[in-house]
Amino acid sequence: MKVDICFTPALYPYYSDDDSDKIVVVVDIFRATTTMCAALNNRARAIIPVASIEEAQAYKSKGYLVGAERNVRRCDFADFGNSPFDYTEDKVGDKEVVFTTTNGTQAIEMASAAGTLIIGAFSNIDAVADFCVGMQKDVIVLCAGWNNRFNIEDSLFGGALARRLIGRGYASASDATQVALSMWEEAKPDVRNYINRTEHVKRLEANNLQDSVEYCLTEDTVDLVPVYNRETRKIIIA
Amino acid sequence: MKVDICFTPALYPYYSDDDSDKIVVVVDIFRATTTMCAALNNRARAIIPVASIEEAQAYKSKGYLVGAERNVRRCDFADFGNSPFDYTEDKVGDKEVVFTTTNGTQAIEMASAAGTLIIGAFSNIDAVADFCVGMQKDVIVLCAGWNNRFNIEDSLFGGALARRLIGRGYASASDATQVALSMWEEAKPDVRNYINRTEHVKRLEANNLQDSVEYCLTEDTVDLVPVYNRETRKIIIA
Repeated sequence: MKVDICFTPALYPYYSDDDSDKIVVVVDIFRATTTMCAALNNRARAIIPVASIEEAQAYKSKGYLVGAERNVRRCDFADFGNSPFDYTEDKVGDKEVVFTTTNGTQAIEMASAAGTLIIGAFSNIDAVADFCVGMQKDVIVLCAGWNNRFNIEDSLFGGALARRLIGRGYASASDATQVALSMWEEAKPDVRNYINRTEHVKRLEANNLQDSVEYCLTEDTVDLVPVYNRETRKIIIA
Repeated sequence: MKVDICFTPALYPYYSDDDSDKIVVVVDIFRATTTMCAALNNRARAIIPVASIEEAQAYKSKGYLVGAERNVRRCDFADFGNSPFDYTEDKVGDKEVVFTTTNGTQAIEMASAAGTLIIGAFSNIDAVADFCVGMQKDVIVLCAGWNNRFNIEDSLFGGALARRLIGRGYASASDATQVALSMWEEAKPDVRNYINRTEHVKRLEANNLQDSVEYCLTEDTVDLVPVYNRETRKIIIA
């Protein structure tokens, strides 16, 4: 089995010539996939990912809870933004939550035909690794990036996951995986310091939203794997 | 001024929202841009880059010298493949050479509207750095990659060039530049060893074409900068 890393959604067609028998792990560390894991961990019944603001508004008018973010800010009409701290159990417990973000939900849409599409974050990284090893299938980490540009935090997650899979039956599939592994080697002793230089941390700080950075980088606070159901188009706990 | 790095041609639209006042450095270390530098250094009058085999064949039937490669092998109809050693002065001196390769010439086409499009390789890296500093404009390194996938060798060149530019008035523009700089830091003590793990070196070795790897990684054997002329659509010495 092999683990590959696709650095942005625009490159996905070149990494997925046959993804029908693969596991695609969508990752958007700051903050969409971290937030989805938190919401499901707080007993949300499902996440309904939608790519556009218009779809999210249509759901809102039907009475759904909606999380909607563009360019790190909550959209005015929405109940929640993109902070994992917003989705508390008293608000989301036993409810379905519609969710749209700048990059994360577009990445899910891009890979929605994959054999198995799951949601990864540092918060559930060991659960994701166990899930992949249990399935015994090739893995593609699909980084949400930022407006289809490469970003460090999602690629770094790819390296951290690849490190966990290699030695448990997986091999590196590509130059991209090799570089992500090197990034993880360099970052591991002090991830927060490594990530401080990224564009996105600067973006969060400029909007006074840096409070969740520490949480988004902390491993294994959540022991579940969100999986996308192609028929219902909802994300539920695997 | 800033230096950015675009890891594959498919991402170029996301890195070039306004490239009309920028310098784009196209790089395909193994081997297209290294070979173009070698041909011009051996007194070829110009390189005529074409993206398709059909265009190259049309030029061939008109009597032009043609270099054509797909998937590391020379095309049957062509005079040369993609090895820098093929383009000797006795063969190319004072001649125009039509050139098409798997990735490199597509990258040139992608960026052909850029303000200034130049050709970079380890062989002319100092000349490229001096050219950029002389122009005092933002720089985008456009990596040819492999079939639009990320590759190590072109990104590594991006890091090596960024290292030369930073401290001469340039700043890193992005997460991509940051990671390429880290790659260069790690690789610099033994570039050949660092590059041995790449997909492309394995591909060259599988086709018994590894003889040019050392040359492609050697800095500053060529003191010229090839530049694309948008009107004539030819690459000449700047």
